[in-house]
Amino acid sequence: MRSTPDRRDNQVYGTIDGPAREALETVFGDRLTFNTTVRTQHGTDMSYLEPQAPDAVAFAASEAEIAEAVKICAAHRIPIVPHGAGSSLEGHILAVHGGLSLDVTLMDKVLAVSAEDFRATVQAGVTREALNHELRDHGLFFPVDPGANATLGGMSATRASGTAAVRYGTMRENVMRMRAVLASGEAIEVGSRAAKSSAGYDLARLLVGSEGTLGVITEITLKLAPIPEKISSAIVAFDSLSDAVDAAIAILQAGVPIARIELLDEVQIRASNAYSKLDLAEKPTLFLEFHGSENGVAEQAELAAALCEEFRSGPFSWASKTEDRNRLWKARHDAAHAAVAYRPGCRPMVTDVCVPLSSLADNLLHARGLIDASMFPAVIAGHVGDGNFHAAFLIDPDRPAEIERAHAINAEIVDYALACGGTCTGEHGIGAGKQKSLRKEAGDAVDVMATIKRALDPDGILNPGKIF
Amino acid sequence: MRSTPDRRDNQVYGTIDGPAREALETVFGDRLTFNTTVRTQHGTDMSYLEPQAPDAVAFAASEAEIAEAVKICAAHRIPIVPHGAGSSLEGHILAVHGGLSLDVTLMDKVLAVSAEDFRATVQAGVTREALNHELRDHGLFFPVDPGANATLGGMSATRASGTAAVRYGTMRENVMRMRAVLASGEAIEVGSRAAKSSAGYDLARLLVGSEGTLGVITEITLKLAPIPEKISSAIVAFDSLSDAVDAAIAILQAGVPIARIELLDEVQIRASNAYSKLDLAEKPTLFLEFHGSENGVAEQAELAAALCEEFRSGPFSWASKTEDRNRLWKARHDAAHAAVAYRPGCRPMVTDVCVPLSSLADNLLHARGLIDASMFPAVIAGHVGDGNFHAAFLIDPDRPAEIERAHAINAEIVDYALACGGTCTGEHGIGAGKQKSLRKEAGDAVDVMATIKRALDPDGILNPGKIF
Repeated sequence: MRSTPDRRDNQVYGTIDGPAREALETVFGDRLTFNTTVRTQHGTDMSYLEPQAPDAVAFAASEAEIAEAVKICAAHRIPIVPHGAGSSLEGHILAVHGGLSLDVTLMDKVLAVSAEDFRATVQAGVTREALNHELRDHGLFFPVDPGANATLGGMSATRASGTAAVRYGTMRENVMRMRAVLASGEAIEVGSRAAKSSAGYDLARLLVGSEGTLGVITEITLKLAPIPEKISSAIVAFDSLSDAVDAAIAILQAGVPIARIELLDEVQIRASNAYSKLDLAEKPTLFLEFHGSENGVAEQAELAAALCEEFRSGPFSWASKTEDRNRLWKARHDAAHAAVAYRPGCRPMVTDVCVPLSSLADNLLHARGLIDASMFPAVIAGHVGDGNFHAAFLIDPDRPAEIERAHAINAEIVDYALACGGTCTGEHGIGAGKQKSLRKEAGDAVDVMATIKRALDPDGILNPGKIF
Repeated sequence: MRSTPDRRDNQVYGTIDGPAREALETVFGDRLTFNTTVRTQHGTDMSYLEPQAPDAVAFAASEAEIAEAVKICAAHRIPIVPHGAGSSLEGHILAVHGGLSLDVTLMDKVLAVSAEDFRATVQAGVTREALNHELRDHGLFFPVDPGANATLGGMSATRASGTAAVRYGTMRENVMRMRAVLASGEAIEVGSRAAKSSAGYDLARLLVGSEGTLGVITEITLKLAPIPEKISSAIVAFDSLSDAVDAAIAILQAGVPIARIELLDEVQIRASNAYSKLDLAEKPTLFLEFHGSENGVAEQAELAAALCEEFRSGPFSWASKTEDRNRLWKARHDAAHAAVAYRPGCRPMVTDVCVPLSSLADNLLHARGLIDASMFPAVIAGHVGDGNFHAAFLIDPDRPAEIERAHAINAEIVDYALACGGTCTGEHGIGAGKQKSLRKEAGDAVDVMATIKRALDPDGILNPGKIF
């Protein structure tokens, strides 16, 4: 049993039949499908939310086709739900009001790589792994790495980040330019290939994180980073969560340009030991990664180790070769799968608050306390360099009381984070699942967002039922 | 003689008299002034554009007063022109349609510094130098440094940057949270103190760079950087502009985390030698600055020097102590004054294109060629790490032919930059001076900006005549 977002406004949307269906069939041919399996798959994301299938799925091969589809849907007031890898965690791809799921995964070309400019231009359906595969020969990589192998269109739409944001930023910092089809069916280009610009409103930043509600992203120019000369990884355990967090803060405060600094709590480590056949100490553990020159990495690592020791860390495990690094970080890489396996048959509800560093330990301990007093287990993993952590509640989908309790704890975690000046979502977005939290966080600013939405999409055809 | 932006729409604005004047006097008392000197000063920025004085100037002491002022002006349809240090370079503070200049410089409190979180919260009228003075004891600094000692409200409003953006980003990356008063008189809070967020539309990024046309910024929470353990500076000359630029690109490509990398062309060096009593070789010269640990800086500097030598650089001059570094960088610091002194009585028109690095040398040579064929001298200075450069045309304000020619060359420089995938303005903004360039650059996306503007400020009272 999954909880269902309401069909929450009274707008009456059209259905895909008659002339609308004919027009879409003319554009997409057999790439328009009403097949139940495909529809169900396109209405199911990786969240705890009840799947909601669209009325049809169109696989777009070009921006021109997307523009045509939007025009047809606009004429008949049919909702458009943009669809990438389907890995969203807050129901972004659910067809809350039915309509057309517009799948962009066929648009999977890397259009240009300019090594000298640290830029790649991709179609919206290119996945981050496919891009990085293509970049390897250029000595460059794209550093934003949400857990899933998401599409760059989807990552842009949800303002995704991941483990390397502490050093390289999120999609907010790494999208330079974009093309998108608006609700009018018109395609616009925003941003530029240059490193910075003061040319009018920052529409690229407005589209990043707009969750498909302002436009369908078709093409993105991304900022790339040079593959570092040297990469070194480490893991280190602490006796307490606060020691681990305080060590992380000390490392950042010292100006160490750390590339990744991740925390798994003792329950997550226990789950990971079981799942990944490891024998890590069942304690709060930091996973560290250093990027730089040979000497630079050695210096960073030495300083970080000294700071961890000040917070009574255990011994360090180190690795530099790719295989060794992957082995060392296995618990982190498999954390999500390990969590689900920790309580067979469970479905995880994942929180995503992000707080100022000074309050991170408090927020983590507060969350841990709430969970320990609850009826289900939960693991905590955090991008601690950003002050972002995920508590995954491992709830039994057949026990409504657990779901209800999970919602209540989630709300308490969010309230605590907001009181500390944080945000309800560091990287997963609002979607259909966090609308109440957004109102708590942003207050009247949500009305400003809604005003912009209405101005750009007066009929509400672009991903209705999300954010608002 | 300065060129005048047109009063370009037919909207009829109200004037500050009768009940409007009484209401404003009730709010501001003797901090509302109609004094001609104050009005003239508030209608004059640092650009080549003709000053346009507001009808009155109000010195606001709080957000509540700003909200009151906006409500009064909204009721009488009186334009509001937010005013910080007045250092804008594209006429942002000109009262193109008259109205009230709302000066925020009395709002000069640093409200909070959280060293652990790398955050400072300031009122909009705090200048960047005042903030950095306050931060020194915390071991932190705010890295965005436009030439002038601008206010942080003004810097946010124009999406300012400066010499350290290559390492630390611009206002786009360094504003975390904001309060602003909208055209309705309502104050909203956007963003959060957290490092990242996916909570709905990125209204903070929309307000950054909106040039006072969407809201009056009252309070800003900024991201800070730790003062590096070691800072080292260098200058080095090259035989050609392309060698200097290629060396800069090689340094960035090698992943050197350089803090500053600035270019002065041979004409600017000549001007600087005369003005600052220096004897630098009159060649294109790079000014470099490295931040990091003792060893890290040594390593960066060594690698950068080796790369410069590959491009036939002259000998390096190095400095580490603050006074020595300031002496070494004197030509860069005084560049603007030196430029003006190079042609006594001149007034500079400053271009601001920003282009992908791979086309930077071409763009610089193209600009130099145009200038050399013209009737006035010009100097070029560039934030080459960002692909951003300024050609300052030293025009005789009494010779209309020079102004006309300067506009024509400026347009050609912009066209060339846009053809390379760049932007017409890296850091100065659109204001009243670059509206045609914005249309060329952003095309129909300008209409999307205008739609947002109309939705949030239907009566067009917030800084009318700017951007659009």
